[in-house]
Amino acid sequence: MQDKSLIALDWGTSNLRATWIDAQGAVIETRSLAGGIMAVQNGQFVQALYSVCGDWLAHSNAVCIASGMIGSRQGWQEAPYLDCPASLHSAAAALVSVNIEPHANKPRRNLYIVPGVRCRSSTGQWDVMRGEETQVWGADVPLGGLCILPGTHSKWVGLSPQSNGQIERFSTYMTGELFAVLSQHSILGRLMQPGPFSAEDFAAGVRIGLLEHAHASHILFSVRTAGLMGQVAPEGLQDYLSGMLIGIELGSAKTQLSPAQCTQAMTLIGDAALCQRYATALAIAGIKSCSAPAEVTALGLRKIFLAQEFL
Amino acid sequence: MQDKSLIALDWGTSNLRATWIDAQGAVIETRSLAGGIMAVQNGQFVQALYSVCGDWLAHSNAVCIASGMIGSRQGWQEAPYLDCPASLHSAAAALVSVNIEPHANKPRRNLYIVPGVRCRSSTGQWDVMRGEETQVWGADVPLGGLCILPGTHSKWVGLSPQSNGQIERFSTYMTGELFAVLSQHSILGRLMQPGPFSAEDFAAGVRIGLLEHAHASHILFSVRTAGLMGQVAPEGLQDYLSGMLIGIELGSAKTQLSPAQCTQAMTLIGDAALCQRYATALAIAGIKSCSAPAEVTALGLRKIFLAQEFL
Repeated sequence: MQDKSLIALDWGTSNLRATWIDAQGAVIETRSLAGGIMAVQNGQFVQALYSVCGDWLAHSNAVCIASGMIGSRQGWQEAPYLDCPASLHSAAAALVSVNIEPHANKPRRNLYIVPGVRCRSSTGQWDVMRGEETQVWGADVPLGGLCILPGTHSKWVGLSPQSNGQIERFSTYMTGELFAVLSQHSILGRLMQPGPFSAEDFAAGVRIGLLEHAHASHILFSVRTAGLMGQVAPEGLQDYLSGMLIGIELGSAKTQLSPAQCTQAMTLIGDAALCQRYATALAIAGIKSCSAPAEVTALGLRKIFLAQEFL
Repeated sequence: MQDKSLIALDWGTSNLRATWIDAQGAVIETRSLAGGIMAVQNGQFVQALYSVCGDWLAHSNAVCIASGMIGSRQGWQEAPYLDCPASLHSAAAALVSVNIEPHANKPRRNLYIVPGVRCRSSTGQWDVMRGEETQVWGADVPLGGLCILPGTHSKWVGLSPQSNGQIERFSTYMTGELFAVLSQHSILGRLMQPGPFSAEDFAAGVRIGLLEHAHASHILFSVRTAGLMGQVAPEGLQDYLSGMLIGIELGSAKTQLSPAQCTQAMTLIGDAALCQRYATALAIAGIKSCSAPAEVTALGLRKIFLAQEFL
């Protein structure tokens, strides 16, 4: 007997975030803990799940659905990638289930894992995502719309102009991770000093990145020389690098867009402060943007839940 | 009284390499130690110098000339950058001297430090080098020639078509450092396994880098997916990344070259194995290359010595 409630799990590399949603779609409660797949030892995923929402599971027949790295080879159970174009309905039809009932003598209870999505470029390189597809479905992007999910591996996701919620293609940019490794482990970090956000240095970085994105490996060195020559203060160098890497991403991604895509507002999904940086950078590039609602993962998982008609 | 011999010092960040050259230009002896400026504590540069060649200094009146990071702000004495176009003669006229006589009651004895060179792009970013200018002068690059100095911060240096040994402009690419930080500190390193050099994976990386250099932050992620999807074996991923970063550098640098520069052989200066990788990548890009003689720093320092006419 189902009670039509849903436990929506955003289960990534570092964190596990659970949202309990009633039959009408109202959030009952939200919890999170540092229980991402890298933190789970010896495959004790059931224990991690019960530690975050064991009481919800005990007191309801809620359906559990998870998206994110939990469906990767390093996760609980691999959920093979869907190929683009990939719709919410194809994901709902391809859910992979694992048994979450901890007692061997009790009936099986399922956790459903959303598959990731992949696409291949004309030159043969694959691109993959896990979790972002569910966020995109939760964000209600308009037909033919484009959304950007900034982060460690920033994603640009294009939706079909014909079919609602169908992911047509996407591209990953290593922007966030390049920022982390270059500021922490390269010579570019040597002259950096902490300081308040410098809008001016950020914007200068964006402009150079946009203009010179085809020479990324070259212009990154100018973060060093801008510090050496006193063009940017030590407190502004982090923002200069951040702006430059976002500018490089935008400059590169822009060349792949259709004229129609360039004129409509792009949907930004993710951490508010990071999305604000992208909104600023997009404005410099002459592109409008809007923000997705918070909790897009839970919204997307609920749509999959409804599409699947578990009852 | 000078004996017309020269102690040529290649004094970089990590290493100090000394070559004693007689009046006829023949090498008497070469030594090196891990005495780069980062290894010298409390400004004890005199001690570092004597530990590598104190006996040469004691038994001769040899002139000492050094190039490299020793002339940087973190070095012994800052030797201000020369602006491009910069010739060997302008460097010889701008040598900066420090006293290397350790005893206060004895007459001064000089170490001459070669200035670095800088140039500025049309969009205002500076580029700098210290040490590479001397290697270029030592390499006897033909009029209008171009040389590449692969490494942590790879340099492309264009020589004047009119004036012998005049450095017209140059560009730095962070290729070597990007390789190091991405393979050691990013997700791209996770799937990598050590193995023998894979010419095939290296060449595949070069081709993609050349083609897609304008999308560097995007295609780098394909090192991850090529591993995930089994397109490149774990043992080949390092060479795939290495090829891709060199390809990105070449693709970017190529767009800055004149048609004349593209048809002549480029001079490769540096570590033989690394230069071989660049020669392979250049061949894939349809560009000829040749190798500079070994010991270009000592050769360049001797030219500066002769130009300066210390006697």
